[in-house]
Amino acid sequence: MESQFEVRIVWGDCDEQGIVFYPKYFYWMDSAFQTLLRDASQSVRAMREEFGIVGIPIVEANARFVASATHEEILRIEAEIRRWGETSLRVEYRGFCEDRPIFEGFEARVWLGRGSNGRPAATTIPEAFKKKFAK
Amino acid sequence: MESQFEVRIVWGDCDEQGIVFYPKYFYWMDSAFQTLLRDASQSVRAMREEFGIVGIPIVEANARFVASATHEEILRIEAEIRRWGETSLRVEYRGFCEDRPIFEGFEARVWLGRGSNGRPAATTIPEAFKKKFAK
Amino acid sequence: MESQFEVRIVWGDCDEQGIVFYPKYFYWMDSAFQTLLRDASQSVRAMREEFGIVGIPIVEANARFVASATHEEILRIEAEIRRWGETSLRVEYRGFCEDRPIFEGFEARVWLGRGSNGRPAATTIPEAFKKKFAK
Amino acid sequence: MESQFEVRIVWGDCDEQGIVFYPKYFYWMDSAFQTLLRDASQSVRAMREEFGIVGIPIVEANARFVASATHEEILRIEAEIRRWGETSLRVEYRGFCEDRPIFEGFEARVWLGRGSNGRPAATTIPEAFKKKFAK
Repeated sequence: MESQFEVRIVWGDCDEQGIVFYPKYFYWMDSAFQTLLRDASQSVRAMREEFGIVGIPIVEANARFVASATHEEILRIEAEIRRWGETSLRVEYRGFCEDRPIFEGFEARVWLGRGSNGRPAATTIPEAFKKKFAK
Repeated sequence: MESQFEVRIVWGDCDEQGIVFYPKYFYWMDSAFQTLLRDASQSVRAMREEFGIVGIPIVEANARFVASATHEEILRIEAEIRRWGETSLRVEYRGFCEDRPIFEGFEARVWLGRGSNGRPAATTIPEAFKKKFAK
Repeated sequence: MESQFEVRIVWGDCDEQGIVFYPKYFYWMDSAFQTLLRDASQSVRAMREEFGIVGIPIVEANARFVASATHEEILRIEAEIRRWGETSLRVEYRGFCEDRPIFEGFEARVWLGRGSNGRPAATTIPEAFKKKFAK
Repeated sequence: MESQFEVRIVWGDCDEQGIVFYPKYFYWMDSAFQTLLRDASQSVRAMREEFGIVGIPIVEANARFVASATHEEILRIEAEIRRWGETSLRVEYRGFCEDRPIFEGFEARVWLGRGSNGRPAATTIPEAFKKKFAK
């Protein structure tokens, strides 16, 4: 399952050179991840309730920038979970302004549940969660 | 009691015109408020424990901008609680780069405790809290 | 002429209490201003070309917060220029999540052209610009 | 030459779980890069004048997160240029709160000058620039 996230780039996203200040792309990758969850009828809050997790924090984030983008342009991000580990997952992102590729990135996230001592710990991702993305 | 907060303005704080994008000043006002709390041996977490509050949220924020500032400059903000209401307080801020006035602003914040039904509600600010700033 | 700006609040917009960190509302007010310009077939870049201005910077910003909002909610902002001065204008904003009022705010902005010495200075707002919003 | 950048983490840097929202680390990496330039008596503006570059934009950014950090903590980032390519450089970062490692990251940046047609293009990094960091 692939999700689409769109945002119109605004003045405040850009730096002195009139192009997007790069940390903002990570904010949008995180936003695109939430769209992906939403498309699977999930959210961090829903996952806390349904699966009892603490959260799904980032352990690695990466982006390669191939072209710049500026305010008034619409950035479209395609997001997909491309790899399932035992306790982690990898979300991949590709950003475009119309047909112009802007960046490619990924996030590695960990399924943070509770260990046997009750403290937050990486735990096995339930099949019921994975299935929600199997379309 | 007046507190001093300092920050060096960086590239990512500035917009296409090379000057600070204005919402950032509110982020720094909020940061200066935390310095003010720290100078009074307080923090939001400490206040939750000592006074049982939910938080001290903003009900109004204002800034008037008198000059622009750019990256590499050091912004100094003076912060002081200038008015105590029954359940609210007003923090005033003045920002400078060296001797150049940059902005003046204020935040009105409410003391959010628990009402008789246990739900978050504006409650009377304890004298013990006010005293911490009486220097 | 009134414009509508919509944004879905995301995880990264919220603080430890799970509600929007307030400076973000000013970022969205600035974004709503750009929507207002766009609805009048304008943009800061277009205005630089058509009217030769340096920019349209903020001289004052204000917001009063009436209710909190959280991630996954859709924030709708109504924006309108409500007052025209000789060299400045006042934009007013009202934010809602569905029918729940979230905040009211305003920005005072100045028409920054070039003075007789060629340096940036507040100058008279052209009627041609005002007319674009007269619907 | 290694530079040290320090920042106190504030309320507005943290998410609902009370830990730093990860894109902020990239903002701080970028800030640490500016400290590195400053320690070498450089800045983006100075480099534009001295070397005629357009800028020194990011082509790749990466961070691996090993522990979380929260408001009131002081984050210290060590920054160093660890690899010089013909037209690019790689800056490496390590973040700590006291002795606790928080993250490791890098930025790949390109030396963006002007090509023979006058348009922005990756060009050879001058030895005079590299020497400034050779301590």
